[in-house]
Amino acid sequence: MNARRFTDPLPLKDVMVRGGFFGGFQKTVLDNVIPYQWEALNDRVPDAAGSFCISNFEIAAGLKQGAHRGCVFQDSDLAKWLESVAYALALRDDPELMRTADGVIDLIVAAQMDDGYLNTYYIINGPEKRFTNLRDNHELYCFGHMLEAAVAYYETTGKDKLLKAMIRYADLIDSLFGPEEGKLHGYPGHEVAEMALIRLYGITGNPRHLALARYFITERGRSPLYFEEEGKKSGASFYWRDTNFRYQYYQAGRPVTRQHDAEGHAVRAMYLMSGIIDVARCTGDETLYDTALELWQSVTRRRMYVTGAVGSSPVGESFTFDYDLPNDTVYGETCAAIGLAFFARRLLFMSPRAQYADVLERALYNGILSGMSLDGRRFFYVNPLEVVPEATQKDEQKRHVKVERQKWFGCACCPPNLARILTSLGQYMVSVSADTAFFHLYESADIRLTLNGQPLSVSLRSGLPWDGAVTLLIESGEASGTLAMRIPGWCRDYTLRVNGETTDAPVRDGYALISGHWQKGSQVELTLSMPVTVIAADPRVRENIGRVAVTRGPLVYCLEEKDNGDALHLVSLPHDAAFTVRHDPDLLGGVDVITAKGYRDDTEWPADSLYAPFAARQPKETALTFIPYYAWANRGAGEMRVWVREG
Amino acid sequence: MNARRFTDPLPLKDVMVRGGFFGGFQKTVLDNVIPYQWEALNDRVPDAAGSFCISNFEIAAGLKQGAHRGCVFQDSDLAKWLESVAYALALRDDPELMRTADGVIDLIVAAQMDDGYLNTYYIINGPEKRFTNLRDNHELYCFGHMLEAAVAYYETTGKDKLLKAMIRYADLIDSLFGPEEGKLHGYPGHEVAEMALIRLYGITGNPRHLALARYFITERGRSPLYFEEEGKKSGASFYWRDTNFRYQYYQAGRPVTRQHDAEGHAVRAMYLMSGIIDVARCTGDETLYDTALELWQSVTRRRMYVTGAVGSSPVGESFTFDYDLPNDTVYGETCAAIGLAFFARRLLFMSPRAQYADVLERALYNGILSGMSLDGRRFFYVNPLEVVPEATQKDEQKRHVKVERQKWFGCACCPPNLARILTSLGQYMVSVSADTAFFHLYESADIRLTLNGQPLSVSLRSGLPWDGAVTLLIESGEASGTLAMRIPGWCRDYTLRVNGETTDAPVRDGYALISGHWQKGSQVELTLSMPVTVIAADPRVRENIGRVAVTRGPLVYCLEEKDNGDALHLVSLPHDAAFTVRHDPDLLGGVDVITAKGYRDDTEWPADSLYAPFAARQPKETALTFIPYYAWANRGAGEMRVWVREG
Repeated sequence: MNARRFTDPLPLKDVMVRGGFFGGFQKTVLDNVIPYQWEALNDRVPDAAGSFCISNFEIAAGLKQGAHRGCVFQDSDLAKWLESVAYALALRDDPELMRTADGVIDLIVAAQMDDGYLNTYYIINGPEKRFTNLRDNHELYCFGHMLEAAVAYYETTGKDKLLKAMIRYADLIDSLFGPEEGKLHGYPGHEVAEMALIRLYGITGNPRHLALARYFITERGRSPLYFEEEGKKSGASFYWRDTNFRYQYYQAGRPVTRQHDAEGHAVRAMYLMSGIIDVARCTGDETLYDTALELWQSVTRRRMYVTGAVGSSPVGESFTFDYDLPNDTVYGETCAAIGLAFFARRLLFMSPRAQYADVLERALYNGILSGMSLDGRRFFYVNPLEVVPEATQKDEQKRHVKVERQKWFGCACCPPNLARILTSLGQYMVSVSADTAFFHLYESADIRLTLNGQPLSVSLRSGLPWDGAVTLLIESGEASGTLAMRIPGWCRDYTLRVNGETTDAPVRDGYALISGHWQKGSQVELTLSMPVTVIAADPRVRENIGRVAVTRGPLVYCLEEKDNGDALHLVSLPHDAAFTVRHDPDLLGGVDVITAKGYRDDTEWPADSLYAPFAARQPKETALTFIPYYAWANRGAGEMRVWVREG
Repeated sequence: MNARRFTDPLPLKDVMVRGGFFGGFQKTVLDNVIPYQWEALNDRVPDAAGSFCISNFEIAAGLKQGAHRGCVFQDSDLAKWLESVAYALALRDDPELMRTADGVIDLIVAAQMDDGYLNTYYIINGPEKRFTNLRDNHELYCFGHMLEAAVAYYETTGKDKLLKAMIRYADLIDSLFGPEEGKLHGYPGHEVAEMALIRLYGITGNPRHLALARYFITERGRSPLYFEEEGKKSGASFYWRDTNFRYQYYQAGRPVTRQHDAEGHAVRAMYLMSGIIDVARCTGDETLYDTALELWQSVTRRRMYVTGAVGSSPVGESFTFDYDLPNDTVYGETCAAIGLAFFARRLLFMSPRAQYADVLERALYNGILSGMSLDGRRFFYVNPLEVVPEATQKDEQKRHVKVERQKWFGCACCPPNLARILTSLGQYMVSVSADTAFFHLYESADIRLTLNGQPLSVSLRSGLPWDGAVTLLIESGEASGTLAMRIPGWCRDYTLRVNGETTDAPVRDGYALISGHWQKGSQVELTLSMPVTVIAADPRVRENIGRVAVTRGPLVYCLEEKDNGDALHLVSLPHDAAFTVRHDPDLLGGVDVITAKGYRDDTEWPADSLYAPFAARQPKETALTFIPYYAWANRGAGEMRVWVREG
């Protein structure tokens, strides 16, 4: 593992995003999403699906009577909200929000059982049944999310009440699970606890916490299959029995080191892969690292949409097979794209390479952001690349696709997941080793870092994704070392100037390495050329044969009916079309709109039959308007299409 | 209704198919399918799904003990088999088969209850529950199929034991169902009884039988919805509750005269439409006729595959919406294409027009025949137009698609339906009015008909679908009148000679009308030009944009992996390709193979990413081999594709 160049993130408050593209989204999350979700968790959003989340905790804490309601994993919604609040408090002082968070932490801890157990579903329905259906009942998933929240809240506020409670819960789990005789040889039905335990280990340094995470990874899928044995005991019906993936739905059909493809439920798969890297990093386990790298190839070379969406099928919200990327029946869950970002970030920080950063960026700017309306009040679970509204109503195999974002879901995993990744974006932008600072994403931010032991304050300014000018200015401090500036995969041409002088810095693994002595006033200017680029998919992707997509910089663009009329399948775009880029500050929160001359085949079909001898048709020239994919479906229901016919 | 030109079919034994294309399939059915299915009905086919059909009748007749097994509609498999046996006995003397049939009729009648009721599921499970779940339990469906069998057996053998039994059952149902106070205001959950009762009415002339058929049509979908009320009483869960079609799954969401589109379960829809026409024909009800015509337009102009398959979605085996014709997730049940042939034949006989015959032919030569292996031992339920084997295993939304035909199904509606339509093909080929004989399909056959009261024996000989030469020779008799020879919609050029002289007969509604005096030795020669024709779909069909299909005469062709390699999406065909047609007597039972130069895009994808800037590719010229669609999947599993990229 010595060949890797380990880097670490900076504390969240040392990377303060300042305005710019994601700064706007962070503001939306702080101003709208977090308060909105608090209302949702308290069932105070009119006409939205019930959450029952706070109510369940109140019942579990004995504050009121009632039955557990909502999904079995409802606790996790609160956990994710709390985690995003932790990050929000790092971004902006908000005493009232902190009071709310402290209050709900009191409630959570009040619900905890004497032995540390903490899950409202089982506390309310009978704790004697706990840990009897790991496969489907999400206990360890809820544990994982609450542990992440506890760690985050401790990290950003220094408050440890929830952390202490969750350490007690972790220790209870550690006492019940493990390889020893008499312990449960189980693991999470939905992964996330693995990542959470590694974060906890980062704070406690307790080898038991690392060992438990490692056990959850290495025990997974070993024979005899825990989930199969558990099912025999409990008699719980096995929903995926007659599917092709069966226990691979949970990535538990065989040991992880024998899993060579991304399979099963996409969110679970992404969380598992992230956990594998976490454990590999902390243990130096080369086999696990190699497993993760192989799975990375499977996902990103063969099973990922151009938007960073993953999960080709709604059945099991799952991966299917290589190059199977249907645009219209896709699942592409927002959480799965978020999971891909988790995975990419972990590989990137372990070994800064362009391919990881490129995927991270692809997911963040496209398939993740698309999950939220621009006002932060409505959310997509499913992120299709092609939509015909009538199909989503009348084709039952596309009913999972929605043409408008929804207020809240009965299963509301995506909205709070969006909130936590957007508020913690600073943890994705920069990472550091002893002598090098890696700049992965160019969002305007004020950054404090240490280079060769010396502190530097850095002001990073960028016009991305609209303008490729990036400036890095040393505001204070003085240090020698390397600034590693990422050259994005989409960029074919760039200029680099250091203190005003053009520089030919060496590029390694996609990073321009600029070594020097840095002090107040030192400046690095990186100008990334970002022309409109027409892209194609690997021809093995059946659905995209003969089609192209329009991109610019990190953004994937799409056609919407609002701008281009319906029946978008009749539209085509020559690959060498001349594009015009125009910034429209009033459209969709301010976007660059791309226009081009394309064609629309409106030729009348003269036949009195559905089928007739081929006759040449005369498509008419038409002006096509492309908008950024992330901003689609903010102007009412209509057709949308990313992959446009070429020609 | 006077403007219509009513025509009638000929008795089955007056249209004896002689060799030729369908003659071969009839022989397969007689030699293999009927004996095979008899074994299946008796559960004697190794490794095939159980039928339990005969066993259920034995239990119901008190000959043995046991529970009803198999689907609730299992009786209908025997009914359809018996109906095909009736037709088989018209085609070929077979005393042993007749003994078997007589024996099973004795068994069926032995199972009948004293009051005429006859359904093994309810006789075994408790007749007090009969007619309490018309929506889902297929009682009236089983009644309809057994009634059709009884009528057919009477018509071809003159034996009336089953007919009498079924008249008793029909009269019982008539006594229980109807508009009168105290009667059940219900109708079949799965249509077919409507058609059967009209056939019965043709024999009995009993107006009650017509009235019952009419009631089942006109009561359907009236408010309050019978199925909804019935469900409230029975408490039976409503499987389609959360779908977009709900009661339209059964075509029962509103009255049939307010149904303007083909909706819901495709087989049910086709059977209903056929029944509507039957009732309209017998009652002169113009409103029902108009309804059927409107539904015909919906099906054939907007919702039908080029193979004559119908049913775009596996969910509910159903129609979806206009121009929604996915090739790979299609349902296209064999029975639905058979139902479309029923519907087309009824409209055609009521009013001979090319459009009806063209669809009838399209379904028969393609989407129906494809349901059976060439040896008659394996069957498709689903008939896709595009298959990638891996997708049928690993994409749960395509798992209904099989790449190889199966031996027998737990729900085995399709195999016996195939048997009965193929054995009764003579009833589709010719129909007559007083002064005109209409020749709809050109299969070699010896035909006896009456023209203006005078009998004629006609020898029809045809090389279709391989050769467009059709000869009609009067073998005996003498009559004046019109021979109406269909000019198929696929034929752009033909010559017509009467007694050796080229004739310019007027063509009306797609039929060349040749009036004259006909006697022994009179001859009509019709030569249909049938070049390979590249066709396109209405551009509103999204899935077929930029694609073409290869056809010749009535046959749709396809590419198979066996001849063309895999990854057929990489293959393209110029619309003006030069085709070679070659008859291969040893291939697939003897077929015309079509070859052409096309292209295959084997250009290496140089990128190290799934997505990369567009770069022109160099497809290589390749020889493409097309085989008739009906014969696909007879040489092992592999890719198949009807709609090929054009260019």
